[in-house]
Amino acid sequence: MNADSQSMAAPKREIEGLEKIFDQLSTEDRDDVFRILYGKQLERVQYDGILETDAAAKGIELKGYRIPAAPEQMRAPRLVKVAAIQNAIVLPTTAPIKDQRDAIHKRVGELLDIAGRAGANVVGLQEAWHMPFAFCTRERLPWTEMAEAVDGPTTKFLIPYAQKYNMVIVNPILERDEAKDDVIWNTAVIISNTGRIIGRSRKNHIPRVGDFNESTYYMESTLGHPVFETAFGRIGVNICYGRHHPQNWMMYALNGAEIIFNPSATIGGLSEPLWGIEARNAAIANHVFTVGINRVGTEVFPNEFSSGNGKPAHKDFGHFFGSSYVAAPDGARTPALSRTSDGVLVTEVDLNLNRQVKDHWGFRMTQRLDMYAKSITAAADPDYRPHIIREN
Amino acid sequence: MNADSQSMAAPKREIEGLEKIFDQLSTEDRDDVFRILYGKQLERVQYDGILETDAAAKGIELKGYRIPAAPEQMRAPRLVKVAAIQNAIVLPTTAPIKDQRDAIHKRVGELLDIAGRAGANVVGLQEAWHMPFAFCTRERLPWTEMAEAVDGPTTKFLIPYAQKYNMVIVNPILERDEAKDDVIWNTAVIISNTGRIIGRSRKNHIPRVGDFNESTYYMESTLGHPVFETAFGRIGVNICYGRHHPQNWMMYALNGAEIIFNPSATIGGLSEPLWGIEARNAAIANHVFTVGINRVGTEVFPNEFSSGNGKPAHKDFGHFFGSSYVAAPDGARTPALSRTSDGVLVTEVDLNLNRQVKDHWGFRMTQRLDMYAKSITAAADPDYRPHIIREN
Repeated sequence: MNADSQSMAAPKREIEGLEKIFDQLSTEDRDDVFRILYGKQLERVQYDGILETDAAAKGIELKGYRIPAAPEQMRAPRLVKVAAIQNAIVLPTTAPIKDQRDAIHKRVGELLDIAGRAGANVVGLQEAWHMPFAFCTRERLPWTEMAEAVDGPTTKFLIPYAQKYNMVIVNPILERDEAKDDVIWNTAVIISNTGRIIGRSRKNHIPRVGDFNESTYYMESTLGHPVFETAFGRIGVNICYGRHHPQNWMMYALNGAEIIFNPSATIGGLSEPLWGIEARNAAIANHVFTVGINRVGTEVFPNEFSSGNGKPAHKDFGHFFGSSYVAAPDGARTPALSRTSDGVLVTEVDLNLNRQVKDHWGFRMTQRLDMYAKSITAAADPDYRPHIIREN
Repeated sequence: MNADSQSMAAPKREIEGLEKIFDQLSTEDRDDVFRILYGKQLERVQYDGILETDAAAKGIELKGYRIPAAPEQMRAPRLVKVAAIQNAIVLPTTAPIKDQRDAIHKRVGELLDIAGRAGANVVGLQEAWHMPFAFCTRERLPWTEMAEAVDGPTTKFLIPYAQKYNMVIVNPILERDEAKDDVIWNTAVIISNTGRIIGRSRKNHIPRVGDFNESTYYMESTLGHPVFETAFGRIGVNICYGRHHPQNWMMYALNGAEIIFNPSATIGGLSEPLWGIEARNAAIANHVFTVGINRVGTEVFPNEFSSGNGKPAHKDFGHFFGSSYVAAPDGARTPALSRTSDGVLVTEVDLNLNRQVKDHWGFRMTQRLDMYAKSITAAADPDYRPHIIREN
């Protein structure tokens, strides 16, 4: 959903990830890098050999981490295994679109099996995961044919996985609101661990820039910032471009979210240095866990398109750099999944950490929400006069 | 102003900084690390040999970088050299307090001379720079004797530097409002390049946690989010703990700030992994430059104090880790000043970059401020009912 790879020279190579580079450092230096950059070195979870082997055989990177909280006297730990799944599309974008969708379903089924077997309780998929991210083309057809009802084939495909593994699934789709005049939305459907649809959340901030002018396809959500109570915590979904807007994260948190997913589709260039910053800042500022999920690979489209940046027309718009990760309210984060391959990241968190950090830092107490209610209301007025002081 | 070093084990050593560690990597790996972590490798500015030698002789780290913008057809570049100064206190905290202050004045004079000779146009000093950060002691006296009027001795000390070097100075002091019943505030005085006081800004978010319960000394600002028009751009000052509050940064930006300073005093542990995230997220989200400035060194106080964390009483509260840096609206940032020594960071920016990124990304256009005015107003109501959806 954002920014142009074309504005910067393409990197000479697609590296697998920063952490591989840090592996070259001495243990002492590596500890310092992780302490300052990532808060701390998280405990790595080891899975049984069969699961590891099965994942590797299917070309799936499986990583597990643990983010513990302190024991409390009045509350038991609330351990939740939060999973992020990132994947490339499977067939060329010239294949019949039903075949494209079914092939992605099959692949994500494999990824969900790995996540389920790793014990995941809540799984997040990437933005519009059942299709190529075709919005760069600005062609309506055939891509809008991939839009589906909230209870359409993609949700139906996921329900058995939710039931089999007793896991909540955050299912971001291109939605066609069949009940309301076929309008298209960018939506996340929340499927409970019992396989029922709890509800939907829609994308609040629609990029209107270059290859990501998604306003060709859908408008801003009118649903506000709903949070979904699940068996494994309260969940909010900040879809893609909303991560650039701190108020979006905040409203999900103020509505009680304990884990905020950020299903995304974003490419290198301007966007990549922001990727590790925004979801993490939101986790810190709002005392929540956040989960950034980004697709991987380069998607080539049948017809060339231009990007509104003076460059020649082209058929792809760059490499989706994956790098999905989980950020914690205490400033810690997991290492990222690969920049180049399909993967499952399972992070065992103790949701008690949210309130522990809230009690420790107290940002809610010092937030002055009443002041900002007034000042943002004033600033939203078209006649607002900025408060500027000049030298006499 | 925040968090406890005591909650985590002290690091075995105070390393100089991350970039020193990255220097061990191959050029290719280093380029990838900087591209993904820091947006890009910025051009380093070289100073004349005499200036370099003079800085080194005084134990001052001098670093210069350049953050350019694209040429435009309708506007000339707006090149501004933005400087950050970080420093340790000079005398023991047992010395007479006037001697302590005068010794810091003298040292900061040396740092200002280096900044001025390096061509700085706008210089930011650290929070309450004229004194040790004594608020951890919760002793009112003698520390409140160090509070000064906006036009008191510390401002008077700086004016000749502003005039000599034609530079704006952001001067964060412990303010005593002598005109209003001697109330104490945490304030930044903005001194113009002509040596006149343009105005003052006060700290909006007062930490109330552990060693940083500064509410013993001062209350939240009632001045809102003023922005100061200077000869070198419009300046906002988000003092210390306000960096944890995205709305604080946003309101300065909505009032027209082009550069937002964040004069701070913060120590290791929980705070350090946040340091590189928050000011940078603010630069990205608001299309502005931000300048994080933090003091260095360990300050030992005459009487022991406790930290509200179950640990034994002690006389210092940890190492201020410096690491001052500048973040740009396009996700780039400078490397940091040292974690351990006094320093001057001079960054030549082109303020045109703000609007260029604004035009490119368009976050203002997709910000939906009117929606958040309503939702934040609702959420600020004590009777607000979070929007939670449950499984039927």
